Amino acid sequence: MSNLNGSQVVELDKKYNQHPWLKGNINPIAVEKADGIYFWDYDGKKYFDMSSQLVNVNLGYGNKAIIKAIQEQVEKLPYIAPAYAAAPKSELAAKLIEIAPKNMSKVFFTCGGSDANEAAINMARTVTGRSKIFSRYRSYHGSTLGSGNLSGDVRRFALENPAANGFVKFFDPYVYHENIKFENDAEASKYYIDKLREQLLYEGPANVAAIIVETITGANGVIIPPDGYLQGVRKLCDEYGMLMICDEVMAGFGRTGKMFAFENWDIEPDIISFAKGVTCGYVQLGGVIVNDKIAKYYEENVFLYGLTYSGHPLACAAGVACVNYYYEANILENVNKVGKVLGEILEELKVKHKCIGDVRYIGLFSAVELVKDKVTKEPLIPYGTDEKNIRGKIISLLNERGFATFGRENNINICPPLIITEEELREAMKIFDDVLTIVDNKFL
Amino acid sequence: MSNLNGSQVVELDKKYNQHPWLKGNINPIAVEKADGIYFWDYDGKKYFDMSSQLVNVNLGYGNKAIIKAIQEQVEKLPYIAPAYAAAPKSELAAKLIEIAPKNMSKVFFTCGGSDANEAAINMARTVTGRSKIFSRYRSYHGSTLGSGNLSGDVRRFALENPAANGFVKFFDPYVYHENIKFENDAEASKYYIDKLREQLLYEGPANVAAIIVETITGANGVIIPPDGYLQGVRKLCDEYGMLMICDEVMAGFGRTGKMFAFENWDIEPDIISFAKGVTCGYVQLGGVIVNDKIAKYYEENVFLYGLTYSGHPLACAAGVACVNYYYEANILENVNKVGKVLGEILEELKVKHKCIGDVRYIGLFSAVELVKDKVTKEPLIPYGTDEKNIRGKIISLLNERGFATFGRENNINICPPLIITEEELREAMKIFDDVLTIVDNKFL
Ligand SMILES: Cc1ncc(COP(=O)(O)O)c(C=O)c1O
Ligand SMILES: Cc1ncc(COP(=O)(O)O)c(C=O)c1O
Repeated sequence: MSNLNGSQVVELDKKYNQHPWLKGNINPIAVEKADGIYFWDYDGKKYFDMSSQLVNVNLGYGNKAIIKAIQEQVEKLPYIAPAYAAAPKSELAAKLIEIAPKNMSKVFFTCGGSDANEAAINMARTVTGRSKIFSRYRSYHGSTLGSGNLSGDVRRFALENPAANGFVKFFDPYVYHENIKFENDAEASKYYIDKLREQLLYEGPANVAAIIVETITGANGVIIPPDGYLQGVRKLCDEYGMLMICDEVMAGFGRTGKMFAFENWDIEPDIISFAKGVTCGYVQLGGVIVNDKIAKYYEENVFLYGLTYSGHPLACAAGVACVNYYYEANILENVNKVGKVLGEILEELKVKHKCIGDVRYIGLFSAVELVKDKVTKEPLIPYGTDEKNIRGKIISLLNERGFATFGRENNINICPPLIITEEELREAMKIFDDVLTIVDNKFL
Repeated sequence: MSNLNGSQVVELDKKYNQHPWLKGNINPIAVEKADGIYFWDYDGKKYFDMSSQLVNVNLGYGNKAIIKAIQEQVEKLPYIAPAYAAAPKSELAAKLIEIAPKNMSKVFFTCGGSDANEAAINMARTVTGRSKIFSRYRSYHGSTLGSGNLSGDVRRFALENPAANGFVKFFDPYVYHENIKFENDAEASKYYIDKLREQLLYEGPANVAAIIVETITGANGVIIPPDGYLQGVRKLCDEYGMLMICDEVMAGFGRTGKMFAFENWDIEPDIISFAKGVTCGYVQLGGVIVNDKIAKYYEENVFLYGLTYSGHPLACAAGVACVNYYYEANILENVNKVGKVLGEILEELKVKHKCIGDVRYIGLFSAVELVKDKVTKEPLIPYGTDEKNIRGKIISLLNERGFATFGRENNINICPPLIITEEELREAMKIFDDVLTIVDNKFL
C-alpha cells in the first residue's frame, strides 16, 4: 500500500500525471477511500457520488462479492492470452448471452468502451462489405481514432486532424430543442425517422454498414428517444441491410431500470457494445455482443481485431461477480423504486427553479438542462464554449457541499450508484436544490 | 471461483467467445492455473510459457508482490475517475518518470498498447499541427483504427476499409533479407537512414508529425536495428521538427536487458508508449511517457483524449508493485545472464538445423527465422499466407511437448519470462531442438 499522504498524492499527480480532457495544471481532489455510494478525500471530507464516477460504478464501492472474486482470481490466474480458454471468460460470455436478446450468440471482450466500439465498426464494415457508418452529433463513443470519429460531441475534434473516412453524422431526437411542436411520441419519431431516411438516401444506403446509437444519449444530457424512434431505426436497418449497433456502454447494466436500455423499447440490436457497468470499474472491461449472423460470419472468416487483454481473466472474474450481483441483490427493483422518487424530485425542482429548462430521467439515469430563460430556452451555457466557466462553477458549488457529479455543455448529470436508498437520494438532492437556488440568483 | 471443469470451460468458450485474429470454431486449450514460468491445463499438463504469453507476463505467474498489491488496493479503492488524484496513479507516474530518460516529464495512462499508441499519435498531431505519421511495414502497434493503421503487418488490412488518412509506411532495417551486403552496422544504418530521408522528402517533412518505431520490432520477428539506425532516426526527427515515438509496448520493461530497449542505443525519444511489462498483465495497463515540451504544451492546451479507465487505481497499484519488483529482484541481471545462454543455444541450433535461416536475440527477446534453404534464404512460409499451415503445425508440435509460444509469418518467437533460470531454459530449448529436427526432416 502507498504511504503517501494526501498532499503528496496531489503534488505528485500535478507534477507527473497528464489528465484526460483537461489542461495539465489542474488542482485535483485526492481520493483516499470509498464505500457504498460515498468516497472520502484525505481530509476526511465525504462526498455523495452522484454520477457513479463516469456512470460506471453502478454497484457503488466496497462490493464484497466483486472484491472477493478479484482476490481469488488474482491468485489462481490473473491473465492468460486470448487464444486460450479460461473459466471466467467462458462463464461471463455465457452469462451475457443468457441475459441478451435471443438473437445474440457471441461475445468479444475488450478493455473499455472505446475499443468495444472499434470492434463494432470493424465487424460492421467487414461483415457487410460496406464502409459508411452513421452516428449522431450529440453522442460520445470513445476517443481512439475510430470511436472518436464516431463520436458527435466536441471531443472528436482532436481526432479530425485529419478525420477518418466513412463517418457520417445525423441529428438525434432532441425533442426539447426542436423548433417543431410534436403532438406525441409517434409524431416525433416519424419526423426523425423520415429525416434519417432522407439522409440515408443521399448517402446511398447500399454503402452504409451500420447505424450506431447510444440507446439513450448519456454524457450529452440523457436524451431519451420518443417511443417509436428506436423501432424506426431498427426497421430502416432491416430495410437497407444495415446493422444496428446499440452503444450500451453507459445506459446498460441496470442504469435505466432494465438490464439493457433498449429493452425499454423492445428492440433487438445486431451488435451491443458494453463496458462500465459490466464490472463497475473494479477491473477494466468492455466488449461487444453480436448476433447469430455475425457470429456465423466469423466461423468462416478470421476476425481481424485483437487486443493483448481481450477476455482478461481477472476482469472477467470481476464481471461474473458483478453481473450476478445485479440479479441476486434485485438491483433493478431498487432502480425502478428509487428512480421514481428521483423523477418526482426533478419535476419539483423544475417548477421551483428558473434556471432549469428541462429534466430528463429514466431509472437512475438523469440530467438537468440549464437555461437563461424557460420560455426562449436560451441555454445558460452556449454550445461548445463556456467562457465564464459557469458549468465549472456550478460543479464546484456542488462539490464543496459534498455532491460529486459532472456535466457537459448545458447539462448536469445525476446518475447515482444503483444501490442508493430513497433516504440517501433525498439528502443528496437537497444539496442540489440549494445550489440551484444560488444559480437562479447569481448566474442568470 | 468458477466451478466449471475443463471440458465445460472449453465448451462454453467455443460456444460463446469470439477469439481475436482467429476463426470462431477453434479448439482452445483451457488453462486452469499458473505459477512461475509454467501454466497447466485441466488435465494437469504443464507448459513452459516460452513467450510470456504475448510477451507481457515478464515476471511470470504467481508474483506475490503484485498479487498482494492488487488484493489490498481492491479493498481500499479499486477505481476512481481520471479527474481525481489517487495514490497508485501518483506513485506509478513518479516512478516511471524516475526511470525514463531525463527529457521525460509526464505520464498518461491507458488500458493497453493500442490506446497508448492512439494517445501518442493524437498528441503528435496536435502538438506539431502536422498530419502525417511515418511507421514501418514490419510492425504491429495495435488494432483500433489509429493504432491499426499505424501497424505495418497484415493485421491492419481490416482497418483499411476505408484506410485512415495520413499514415505513411516505410521499410525497416531488415538486414538479413536485404539484397545489399553491408560491411558493418554503420554502413547498414546509413543506407536505411538515407532511404528514410529520401522518402520523407517526397512526403514533405514539414507535414510529418512523427516517426514511430517499435524500438525493436517484436511480433514480426525480433528485428534488431543496426547500431546507428535509431540514432539516425533521432537526428532526422530533430532536423525536421518531427517527434520520435518509441513503441516499447513489447520491448520495454526489462525484455532486452535494459529497462527500455532504446537504452541499448543511448537515445531519448519524445514519446514512449508502453503496456505489457508495466503490470505483466495482472491488471491491464498501458500509457505514454512524454517529454517536457509536450507536457508543457498541455499545460496551456486541453488534452483532447480520454478513457474512463485512464489511470485506473487497481491497475496502477499492480504497476507500482511490478516496476519495483524489477529492481528489487535484480531482474535485469538475470535477463543479461540467462539471455547470454539463450544466444549461445540459438547460435548452436542455427548451425545444427537446416531449417533455420537466422536467429536474432537480445536479452530474453528472440526469434528464429525459418527457411527452405539457408543459401537462397527462401522462406519456409511465404509472407502473408501459410496455406499448408506449416507454422500452425510447428507450434502444435511444440505445444504437444509442453513448449508454449507463438509465431508470425516465418518466425517463431522465444521470449520466456524474465525470471527463467539457466536450467529451465536449457530444458525447454531441448524440446525446441527436437521439434526443429522434425521440421528439418519433414517440412523442407
Ligand atoms: C456511451 C459511451 N460509449 C463509449 C464510451 C467510451 O468508453 P471508454 O471511456 O471506456 O473508452 C463512453 C464513455 O464515457 C460512453 O459513455
Ligand atoms: C509493439 C506493440 N505495440 C502495441 C501493441 C498493442 O497492444 P495491445 O494489444 O495491448 O493493445 C502490441 C501488442 O502486441 C505490440 O506488440
